[in-house]
Amino acid sequence: MNKELYFDNAATTAVDERVVEAMKPYFSMTYGNPGSMHTLGLEAKEALDSARVMLARFLNCSDEEVIFTGSGTESINMAIKGAALALQKKGKHIITQKTEHPAVLETCEYLEKQGFEVTYLDVDVYGFVSLEKLKEVMRLDTILVSIMYANNEIGTVQPIKEIAEVCKENKVLFHTDACQAAGYLDMDVKNLGIDYLSMNGSKLYGPKGVGILYVKSGRPLSPLIHGGGQEYGKRSGTENVPLIVGLAKAVEIADGEREREVARLTEMRDYLIRELLKRIPKSLLNGHPTKRLPNNVNVTFLNVEGETLLLELDQYGICASTGSACTSKTLEPSHVILALGRPYEVAHGSLRFSLGRYTTKEGIDKLLGILPETVEKYRMLSPVHLQESQI
Amino acid sequence: MNKELYFDNAATTAVDERVVEAMKPYFSMTYGNPGSMHTLGLEAKEALDSARVMLARFLNCSDEEVIFTGSGTESINMAIKGAALALQKKGKHIITQKTEHPAVLETCEYLEKQGFEVTYLDVDVYGFVSLEKLKEVMRLDTILVSIMYANNEIGTVQPIKEIAEVCKENKVLFHTDACQAAGYLDMDVKNLGIDYLSMNGSKLYGPKGVGILYVKSGRPLSPLIHGGGQEYGKRSGTENVPLIVGLAKAVEIADGEREREVARLTEMRDYLIRELLKRIPKSLLNGHPTKRLPNNVNVTFLNVEGETLLLELDQYGICASTGSACTSKTLEPSHVILALGRPYEVAHGSLRFSLGRYTTKEGIDKLLGILPETVEKYRMLSPVHLQESQI
Repeated sequence: MNKELYFDNAATTAVDERVVEAMKPYFSMTYGNPGSMHTLGLEAKEALDSARVMLARFLNCSDEEVIFTGSGTESINMAIKGAALALQKKGKHIITQKTEHPAVLETCEYLEKQGFEVTYLDVDVYGFVSLEKLKEVMRLDTILVSIMYANNEIGTVQPIKEIAEVCKENKVLFHTDACQAAGYLDMDVKNLGIDYLSMNGSKLYGPKGVGILYVKSGRPLSPLIHGGGQEYGKRSGTENVPLIVGLAKAVEIADGEREREVARLTEMRDYLIRELLKRIPKSLLNGHPTKRLPNNVNVTFLNVEGETLLLELDQYGICASTGSACTSKTLEPSHVILALGRPYEVAHGSLRFSLGRYTTKEGIDKLLGILPETVEKYRMLSPVHLQESQI
Repeated sequence: MNKELYFDNAATTAVDERVVEAMKPYFSMTYGNPGSMHTLGLEAKEALDSARVMLARFLNCSDEEVIFTGSGTESINMAIKGAALALQKKGKHIITQKTEHPAVLETCEYLEKQGFEVTYLDVDVYGFVSLEKLKEVMRLDTILVSIMYANNEIGTVQPIKEIAEVCKENKVLFHTDACQAAGYLDMDVKNLGIDYLSMNGSKLYGPKGVGILYVKSGRPLSPLIHGGGQEYGKRSGTENVPLIVGLAKAVEIADGEREREVARLTEMRDYLIRELLKRIPKSLLNGHPTKRLPNNVNVTFLNVEGETLLLELDQYGICASTGSACTSKTLEPSHVILALGRPYEVAHGSLRFSLGRYTTKEGIDKLLGILPETVEKYRMLSPVHLQESQI
């Protein structure tokens, strides 16, 4: 596997070798249960505490505000269900948007079945939610707003700080899914004014199976997983020391390299976007040209099926994706692209290239050397012949 | 760290080096998201499928009945809440017992707050639940029975097959927490007649952060974690391929060595029990002499604090525990020992030695060389002077 040709870093990343090295001693050497009283337990507890201190510093919060979970999806479920359940006496109205990750949307749909009411805000053609619209739909019984920091498919970065302010003015708590943002965007929760933030490490070269839920001190939360009372009583289960150490290491590396890496990726992103749009006729960028994740490229090629292109690229060792990995098996067009107002056929021909730590200009040039011909070849076979003016 | 002196294998085990090796390629080489369409995704999907097939064979069930979760605690929460929520129209009565793990007890207490009614059955002096009593408390609105396979503190092995039969006769579904049993006892769910079974790998030399929930085909289950619809729509979140591969490897090893290992551990267990009771006056075995896990020894030493002994043993590199690791920080006496009918002071002087793969007769002899003197030393300082006849 040539990591230079892996353009699916938003689906999941390789674990950085330095992270693997950092985890290793905690599998078979310092393997104690942090709840145990003996030296081996205390050593595990120390590693856990150090990781928590490091991550609290990263988020600019206090240690007790960092709750370790089993995944980004779990963090999101915990935040939304946990806040909803704890606040249901105050009200049962939740606001989110149509382009959220299924972890948010499915959780909201579940809550609707439990008697909650959810407003799914529209987004504009770039995928932005409207602050005015958000203010309009606020109600006296609104208890929670959940808007993602950056979109996993089209990379659109929401004005999180402004959204947080609107929430604050309306005395409504605010959760953000920052799973794609971590490692690239400002994660200072104090500066951003966030109440709950979900993130994980599997998109930033850390291990799968560990996530963080930041819960601002004093914010209500009913636990999702009950038991031994670990994580300040908020999330039970033996603390996963190796993976937590790995997550901390991954965040430390990503944070240290952030400025340089964001600049490097942004340049490659813009190069790839520019060249794709130039070399491939009838191609459209999805999302905003600049207010997007530094590693996200999402382009629609009219009159060709995204899946077909993917399989052809795969023959050359190039990994990309149509939308999110979660929904790639359903063959349904992306709900995100549809929410931008694109027609069904357009949504079907979208490809996401998510760059990463191992992406190089050479790798991008290889992609650019293959894709235009591939698109051309399959367009000739397509029964659909849309023009740009039609969308 | 000398693994021969680690007598806390019921809290957590070292990850077997063979398991670490098996996981390694899936961190940084075959790191794709199993939901992705490209080769790297398909390779991850194949590894996931193979692990599932292996574990289905282990449990004697079909692949779709194996749901991967993030921990034993999550499996337990998912089974009990998931069944309760799905069945609440039929009834809201649940039966469990007083010596369950906090993951079961706290989940039941949560459900009580949600309007469910829970009967907590007493246990006898050995920790057994009574089949007669279970039949008595069955009601028309009983929807679920949750009784653990083997107790984590005192090792008592419940008559699971008979309990399952009582449930079946009463048309009530049956969940068992098998987190301590896996690797030692019969795990053939068909033979046992179980509807839901929770287990994990962190007590059998597998990684933390991955668990299994067996859900018999057709048995209702409302998901605990919503999102991308992985695991047959029952548990969302990117499948954790490295840890799942590790769990399968750990189970494969444990299952292959089971017969020999159970015999080896049982012999050492009985030797340790015999010698402790012989060499230390006023000591009592907790749990049943033979119907206990092959690796569990739990003994009360009258008139001495368990915590004090633990800290002293730790000076010699010996790791043991008072009760479960989850509750070791509270200094509350074990709810399990109290449920056996032992007085408060007795519960306070209990130590659990859980043997494991790296335990040797030499290690046990080292423990036996230290503990009698230690007990004697601290007893002289104790203000309490109970006699065996008083308990």
